[in-house]
Amino acid sequence: MSDRLVIIGGNAAGMSCAAQARRLREPADLEIVVVEAGQWTSYSSCGIPYWVGGEVEDAEALIARTPAAFADQDIQIRFGTQAQAIDLEAATVTVRTDDGSGDATGTTIGYDHLMIATGATPLRPPVEGLDADGVFGVQTIPDGEAIRSALEKDPKRAVVLGGGYIGLEMAEALVNRGLSVTVVLADPLPMSSLDEDMGERVCAAMTAMGIDVRTGEPVRGIDVEGGAARAVVTDGGSYAADLVVLGLGVRPNSDLAGDAGLRIGTTKGIEVDDTMRTLSHESVYAAGDCIQTRHRITGRPVAIALGTHANRQGRVAGTNIGGRPARFEGVLGTAVTKVGDCEVGRTGLSTKEAQEAGFSIETTVIESTVKAGYYPNAGKLAVKLLTERQTQRMLGGQIVGGPGSAKRIDVLATAIWAQLTAAEFAAVDISYAPPFSPTFDAVVLAARKAAGR
Amino acid sequence: MSDRLVIIGGNAAGMSCAAQARRLREPADLEIVVVEAGQWTSYSSCGIPYWVGGEVEDAEALIARTPAAFADQDIQIRFGTQAQAIDLEAATVTVRTDDGSGDATGTTIGYDHLMIATGATPLRPPVEGLDADGVFGVQTIPDGEAIRSALEKDPKRAVVLGGGYIGLEMAEALVNRGLSVTVVLADPLPMSSLDEDMGERVCAAMTAMGIDVRTGEPVRGIDVEGGAARAVVTDGGSYAADLVVLGLGVRPNSDLAGDAGLRIGTTKGIEVDDTMRTLSHESVYAAGDCIQTRHRITGRPVAIALGTHANRQGRVAGTNIGGRPARFEGVLGTAVTKVGDCEVGRTGLSTKEAQEAGFSIETTVIESTVKAGYYPNAGKLAVKLLTERQTQRMLGGQIVGGPGSAKRIDVLATAIWAQLTAAEFAAVDISYAPPFSPTFDAVVLAARKAAGR
Repeated sequence: MSDRLVIIGGNAAGMSCAAQARRLREPADLEIVVVEAGQWTSYSSCGIPYWVGGEVEDAEALIARTPAAFADQDIQIRFGTQAQAIDLEAATVTVRTDDGSGDATGTTIGYDHLMIATGATPLRPPVEGLDADGVFGVQTIPDGEAIRSALEKDPKRAVVLGGGYIGLEMAEALVNRGLSVTVVLADPLPMSSLDEDMGERVCAAMTAMGIDVRTGEPVRGIDVEGGAARAVVTDGGSYAADLVVLGLGVRPNSDLAGDAGLRIGTTKGIEVDDTMRTLSHESVYAAGDCIQTRHRITGRPVAIALGTHANRQGRVAGTNIGGRPARFEGVLGTAVTKVGDCEVGRTGLSTKEAQEAGFSIETTVIESTVKAGYYPNAGKLAVKLLTERQTQRMLGGQIVGGPGSAKRIDVLATAIWAQLTAAEFAAVDISYAPPFSPTFDAVVLAARKAAGR
Repeated sequence: MSDRLVIIGGNAAGMSCAAQARRLREPADLEIVVVEAGQWTSYSSCGIPYWVGGEVEDAEALIARTPAAFADQDIQIRFGTQAQAIDLEAATVTVRTDDGSGDATGTTIGYDHLMIATGATPLRPPVEGLDADGVFGVQTIPDGEAIRSALEKDPKRAVVLGGGYIGLEMAEALVNRGLSVTVVLADPLPMSSLDEDMGERVCAAMTAMGIDVRTGEPVRGIDVEGGAARAVVTDGGSYAADLVVLGLGVRPNSDLAGDAGLRIGTTKGIEVDDTMRTLSHESVYAAGDCIQTRHRITGRPVAIALGTHANRQGRVAGTNIGGRPARFEGVLGTAVTKVGDCEVGRTGLSTKEAQEAGFSIETTVIESTVKAGYYPNAGKLAVKLLTERQTQRMLGGQIVGGPGSAKRIDVLATAIWAQLTAAEFAAVDISYAPPFSPTFDAVVLAARKAAGR
């Protein structure tokens, strides 16, 4: 008799686990059942701002792999099916399925391997009015559909709550749609995963593109009129809004796991080891936005919701379920985003993170150009490097600059991953031609300056 | 009494040596004299195709640092001054200076430290007609001026000899100027520093942009009429040309050093150690296109003419002359270029180079997109990875693709420099957002595929 793998959650972590497990084990050997509360699998959550902004016209384009493609691989997906409880002793999951008529039926599914990939939920500030019409999350395909429908009513003003990745991307999308956009954030600057001096550059770029950035103003409430949001209220003022977007980050969906008795970490994510197994139950895995993972540099637990991590972790779980040993090697929190022509990249530790982890650091900032200074459209960029004072080991990098700047963060991520010192990285034979960089790329200049102290 | 540093050649290697030596030693302690045969220093030779193509309008823009800036640092530059001989025993350089009247005067300069930075000379095929009007090199500012003057006569047809970096860049420049361009090369494909399958992609892109690429046709002669070039003749045909551009590569200018008794290597470059000192004379340094340097992976001598190497090597020499120990860490031959919308990057060993060096290798090619597949203008790219069969260590990388693809070569260069295996690199936390890459960047996909064997 074959084993059964039950996967709760059919997005990045869940479906990459399914695909990898199937690559390694035939249908006759392993049955794979995915339980998905919604109606979509394997969609690009990160693509939703670009669908809202109109760069992408069709939601279908966001689907990395269709249910039919999974069916071809004998991966069953049960849509509209909510996991309600896990019984670790009995090795079963109780689910409730909406049959379409509004009634829901409960049933219990046994598993040999369980994968918990329940993702995360957008944070909602503890204020009145969030349930009004015109207040939107940005996570699911239905979220995107709702915002696109709202845009058809020709709204004039939008308020985005939060200045992280989603906040920036939604601000860009709504500016592209012709709205006046206000970004309201509790933090002193947008992009709190950057150092303040770099966050200031992002803030200046947002202001320059006409976005009204209101910093240090936590939202106090939503003014509602006739059931619809009309304004966002802070201690600093009231900002008229035909639509309000939530971009305040997410919290791990770990309640289902916690209720079952699995260990939940300090970050509220499910605790797993490097094989993606939960700590108490060898046959129960978890991956993606619902877990807490290990920071590569500090070794400390972190919960960072990024599609790349979720995919990688799901794949590791799937490999282990498939019978081959695999370990997840930790995260640097490498990420890129953009708002208009301002690109942002970050990897490794920020100054605040480094200090909290007890590192004594030095920071180096340089300004340069994306292409040779004399080449057309050579935008500016700033690179910030964090190095450990005693060893000069690179600990973190941040980039803010014009088009073509942010992807350089991958070079720093690779150097940091390989534990190079600033001097070692400054010696790396990096490419140059006038359409691509000055003679020495900004990342090299930053390392050279850091090494030269 | 102060020491005197004499530098022969006032471009990348020479002037970065001068600048670095000055940073470390005051004028009262070190006199710096640069002997330059031409009338320009520190110009971007790599920028000349873009000046010819019209992306850059003013030659002044190509000057990284003016003579006045060097004078401010007490770095003397003697223009129009040709070094004619080096006497290693007497520690003198004999120079001949054109005084402007057509007469030249000889003189002898003593040195405590000598830096030879004589660069390289474009290769000229052994055929008739190369001295005709309308045949141009592409190395110096006067070369660029001559081509720009020729373009004012409204030429219709150009033939570029050679399909390396300069060949591609000049083909692009002349297409941008509205000429019909034929590229004639002896090799079976353009970009011989790539593997053939990658070179084929470049060739196809060139053809698609209307360039007539004639491969496997070494030039046999230039047809000259009234003193001016009219056609390029090969065994395959005669290609009408109002102007002919030499892009056949370069040879190190090592005769001056060789005549003085310094050791010249198998590559025709001057032999130096990692401190940039010549092997026999501790106070005599050489750097840049005139030397042979060490390949980081094979440890073997190579002569690769690249501005980044020249700058780095000059800086190492200047640091040592300045009294601080410094070593050059070798090269991977990392380079980028573009022809129209086709970008090319390469680093480390090609298949041919790896085989010649005795490595048993595996190669992996993947195709992906520069941005998320659904994002607008997501161009295609191909990544080729070379790994050592036994260890899976990464040995080389090649990229050919649309706008935004080539600079990813720096990520591979960093991974190769740090001696990562394909599996180790595949685990690196690389960035993702839809405007920047698919969930897994093409370089990660290539490494993952290589590691998965």
